[in-house]
Amino acid sequence: MPDSAALLADWRARTEADLDHVLGDCFASARLADAMRHAVKAGGKRIRPLLVHATVHALGGDGEHARQPAVAVELLHTYSLVHDDLPAMDDDALRRGQPTVHVAFDEATAILAGDALQTLAFEILANGGVPAETCVKQLRELAHASGIDGMCGGQMRDLEATGTADTLSITELERLHALKTGALLRAAVRMGALAGNADGAQRATLDRYADALGLAFQIRDDLLDIEGDSATLGKTAGKDVEQAKSTFPALLGVEASRQRLQQLAAEMHDALAVFDQRADALRAIARQVIERDR
Amino acid sequence: MPDSAALLADWRARTEADLDHVLGDCFASARLADAMRHAVKAGGKRIRPLLVHATVHALGGDGEHARQPAVAVELLHTYSLVHDDLPAMDDDALRRGQPTVHVAFDEATAILAGDALQTLAFEILANGGVPAETCVKQLRELAHASGIDGMCGGQMRDLEATGTADTLSITELERLHALKTGALLRAAVRMGALAGNADGAQRATLDRYADALGLAFQIRDDLLDIEGDSATLGKTAGKDVEQAKSTFPALLGVEASRQRLQQLAAEMHDALAVFDQRADALRAIARQVIERDR
Repeated sequence: MPDSAALLADWRARTEADLDHVLGDCFASARLADAMRHAVKAGGKRIRPLLVHATVHALGGDGEHARQPAVAVELLHTYSLVHDDLPAMDDDALRRGQPTVHVAFDEATAILAGDALQTLAFEILANGGVPAETCVKQLRELAHASGIDGMCGGQMRDLEATGTADTLSITELERLHALKTGALLRAAVRMGALAGNADGAQRATLDRYADALGLAFQIRDDLLDIEGDSATLGKTAGKDVEQAKSTFPALLGVEASRQRLQQLAAEMHDALAVFDQRADALRAIARQVIERDR
Repeated sequence: MPDSAALLADWRARTEADLDHVLGDCFASARLADAMRHAVKAGGKRIRPLLVHATVHALGGDGEHARQPAVAVELLHTYSLVHDDLPAMDDDALRRGQPTVHVAFDEATAILAGDALQTLAFEILANGGVPAETCVKQLRELAHASGIDGMCGGQMRDLEATGTADTLSITELERLHALKTGALLRAAVRMGALAGNADGAQRATLDRYADALGLAFQIRDDLLDIEGDSATLGKTAGKDVEQAKSTFPALLGVEASRQRLQQLAAEMHDALAVFDQRADALRAIARQVIERDR
């Protein structure tokens, strides 16, 4: 049996190839297609697609059935980055070390590229090779996680909280990030659980893993904004402090934030205890999220 | 049997109630929900939902099965208006006689409201009461019609063509509008055809109707920009001429554009000849599109 590192490398390569494929068709607008490719191919850790593949694998499901949801969730995530970077939103010129879409192209193209990436995510998912019943359930998960009661709602709350003198409570901050980043990470795991025919107990334990992962991801992100440098991060470090954003280190302190990360690592470890070594890739993703430097 | 006017009024009321319902749930962000409601409840002709209901009715299908696709296509259409109105796109301050979302709220909120309206469209459709197989096919239609090879691609082409000295050929102009507005109108009819279990011949004839309707819709729109006044239109008249846009009257002349409209009316009439009086509502929508003054 291949080890987790080999599996993750395979799935990453498979995801890149699948992304190339869905963005490689002949399209109605060459400029729009170029902008979409610029956003998707700028790289990134591909954590969400890896979560789909690793979840299907942990359940002993058919790896082929992970491919469409893996691509869909990455397209969805990429659209959100394109729009978040816009001047009217976070106004970022740099993303993964590359000029953002509105800088490399223009603002109108960036808005449309984000829009079309969202649409493409749902189109790819609707073309999945799973039974229609499963496909519809995956679509519900992805849509619910990314809309007003998920990612969009979280981004709106984040914008409302940024730049005001008010500090969020730790509960409010956790809720904000559960929406803004947690929901989509959980949807990746849930789409994998659906593709792998998880039973009720497995779904519950995978939810527990995903929720801890989402929170850990954000705490690590906040710590990196303080500890990291822009070159490694591929984006501007120190932005949170500059914008007086509510972050975990700002509310809890750096040391307590690190402790919270370790608690979440233990939580993920416990949640996965019901799975055998087929869940090692999920365990490896947890370690990556906790230890990553970008 | 109720006449077409009564049926259309019923379906319009049903659509308004269904839109109120899906936008009335408790949401994670009150501000974002307000912005979404502002966009959706500013009114509009609801042609796309009426097309879904009228198509299902023409086929003798279950009217309940028209409801989710009707709401979904209107949410999708509304998101496109919110984004098209943005300063970086068409920069419109007035829509249906109301301030546009970025004017009534702000630009970031308008971007997110558009994003979340698109997501909600797919979520509502995935919650439809039709069999899963039908639902997945409807999702494919809606996604394909609204993405890079449909609405988004058409809007990108429109932006690329606007403000350049080049005039489009009539073929290029028809292609642009087939993408920008035609694809979504056709998707409305196709989702209705799927909900009403149309056979192959019925699907082909409904496609013919929908394609003619889409083109007629755009020619009428172009003529109204010349002939209409802003108060009746609820938007700024004369914008096309001011921006030197390629339009049907500009390329063909006003009289030839009117003749083309009448040809398309005949084309729709012919296409619907295979249907009995159950298709009278589709015929009434065709007349509305040809004769509308806003």
